[in-house]
Parts: sequence; structure tokens; C-alpha cells
Amino acid sequence: MIKSKKQIIYEVAAKLFKEKGYPVTSMRDLAAAVGLKKASGLYSHIGSKEELLQNICLNNAKHYLKGMKSIESLIASPTKKTRLLIDFHIKTAIENPTSVTVFNDEWQHLSEPFLADFLEMRRDYEKRFFSIIVEGIERKEFKSINPTLALYTILSSIKWVHYWYRPDRSISVQQLTDNIIALLLTGIEKNLR
Amino acid sequence: MIKSKKQIIYEVAAKLFKEKGYPVTSMRDLAAAVGLKKASGLYSHIGSKEELLQNICLNNAKHYLKGMKSIESLIASPTKKTRLLIDFHIKTAIENPTSVTVFNDEWQHLSEPFLADFLEMRRDYEKRFFSIIVEGIERKEFKSINPTLALYTILSSIKWVHYWYRPDRSISVQQLTDNIIALLLTGIEKNLR
Repeated sequence: MIKSKKQIIYEVAAKLFKEKGYPVTSMRDLAAAVGLKKASGLYSHIGSKEELLQNICLNNAKHYLKGMKSIESLIASPTKKTRLLIDFHIKTAIENPTSVTVFNDEWQHLSEPFLADFLEMRRDYEKRFFSIIVEGIERKEFKSINPTLALYTILSSIKWVHYWYRPDRSISVQQLTDNIIALLLTGIEKNLR
Repeated sequence: MIKSKKQIIYEVAAKLFKEKGYPVTSMRDLAAAVGLKKASGLYSHIGSKEELLQNICLNNAKHYLKGMKSIESLIASPTKKTRLLIDFHIKTAIENPTSVTVFNDEWQHLSEPFLADFLEMRRDYEKRFFSIIVEGIERKEFKSINPTLALYTILSSIKWVHYWYRPDRSISVQQLTDNIIALLLTGIEKNLR
């Protein structure tokens, strides 16, 4: 597949935002990294530095909401849905680590109204994940733990994966996912029956 | 307790690094935030902007290593030690959220040889936590999961706490800690016996 100049600019921008951080990445850095002599050459492809960040953040947010929607619509137990959501998070992070890092770490540099839109999408996502956990508790599939704590512990516990995972680790994506799901859902301790 | 000017500068610097990020915080911002008219006024108290970051990172690293040493020296099971380490992480993050955020997020801006020292201390800490998990698996207190995955899932899962916790949340630090330990060690699912 031949990539358009715009696609290349987006990929390189995400890489620079990840490595240097959004605030210190300049249009000049970006131009140099895509092989343009002048930063002004970028403007025939993109509007501004912030437009790049906006689109990276919004595209990721939409991706997560789409995944949530398809898992919600399944006829499945809260346990099964929680497993599928963890699996979805890990696969997303491993398939697109650069973009996910920017989404996780750099969103706070968005300006309004994009920041408000982004936070609204995140709240919506979290609320829907929260509902699945609450349903799991109500159906007595899950312990009666605080559902907010369970939600953020799960979401946070997956965030290291894409910093660490490389195909040369002696573990497959599937093993990684199975282990993390086992750890979060059934715990590290052996059940003493 | 009366705080020295130096202490105040450190606290304000940590706050600015946390809010704006280390790279975009200037000595001028810092001078203004501590009520000095000129950035040059800072240099009678501190050496440089990076010296502030170095000390924040090294002091946190030392604090974690000290906590590790005292927990390692206990005559206790790997399960008990793991519980104590999680408890230690949560209490540290809640007692000193600003400093811990800088330590977690801004260390990559350290220059050499400080970066190498910092990473060496972190590796040392992680290796010792890893050994406790391996011992737990060997003694069959823990399931035979991948110990690296267990380590990073635990460390990462606690990182959201200090962003979220405020004394006005209707949960005490102890309840928070107990819930997270329960979640990580025995899992979210009910044991079906």
C-alpha cells in the first residue's frame, strides 16, 4: 500500500510527539523528519501542529468507543465483556503503540473545544465500562468491590503493555493477554479451596 | 515548621513540572511562582533547573529503595511482602502526589550520568520486587503466571491512584488500599467453590 504524504506526516508526528512530547516538537522538527526543507511545506498537507494532535486523539477516542459499542451489543455475561474489553485494549495498544502513547500522554495539550470533546468521549467510555462492572457485581459474578476502583485499576494496569511489548519478547500477544486477564480477573494468589 | 526558601522552590518546581511538564517550565516561571522578580534570584538557592529534576527523581528513587529494603528484611511470606509493597506504593503516592507524578512522568528528561543512575536504581527496585513474586510462585502461594507480567501489571495498576484520590472521595486511604490489594491478589471474580 502506498501511503499518502498526509499519512506519513501523521505517523512521523505521532512518533515525535511520543519521543519528545507535544509541547517541544516544532513544525520545523516535523518538516525535517519527513524530508521537507521548510516547515511551510507542511501546510499544503495539514492545518497546524494542534490539528495533528486533535486528529490523533479523536481517532483513538472513536476507535475505543467503536470497540465498546461492539462489545456492549453482544449477548454475553459481564465477565465475558470485561475479558473482551481488556483483550481489545491490549491489542489496540500493541497494534498502534505510537498513536496510543500520544493519546494517553499528550491529550492534555488539546485546546478548547477539542479538550472538552475529548474528555466527554472519555467519560462516556468510562461510564459504559463502569456499567459492565456494576452489572457483574449485581449478578454476583464479581466480588462486591468498589466499581470505580476496579475500573481504574483495570484501565491503568494495561497501560504499561505497549511500552514493554516487542515481538522478540518470548511471549505471544495472546499469552500476554491471557496472563493479564487471569491476573486481573482471578488474581495472582492461588485459590485455596 | 518553617520551610526554607530552598524547600519552597522544590515544592513549587515539582508543581510546575507536574502541571506544565519539565521541558516547557522555565526558570522565569519558577521565579514568578515563588515571588522572585528575576530568575537570577533563584541561583542563590539552587544550581539549575535540571538539578531540581535530578533531586526530585533521586529522592523518590531512594525512598522506594528504602521501603523495599525494610519490607525485604521482614520474616514474612511473599504474599505478605507483596501486600506490603502495594500498600507502600499507594501511601507514597497519596502522601506526595506532586513529587511522585514528576518522578513517574518526567525522569526521561534527565541527562547523563543522572539518567543512567536513575535507571539503575529503578532496575534494582524492579529486580527485587520480581524476586518476591518468583518466590511466591515457587512456594505455590501464587499461580504460575509470568512474573514479569505480574510485576508490571501490579506497578502500573497503582499509578492512577494519586491522580484520582482526594480526601473528599467517600473512601479512606485504607479502604482504597484494601480494595486494590484484593483486586490484584485475589482478582475481581468471585471464587466459584
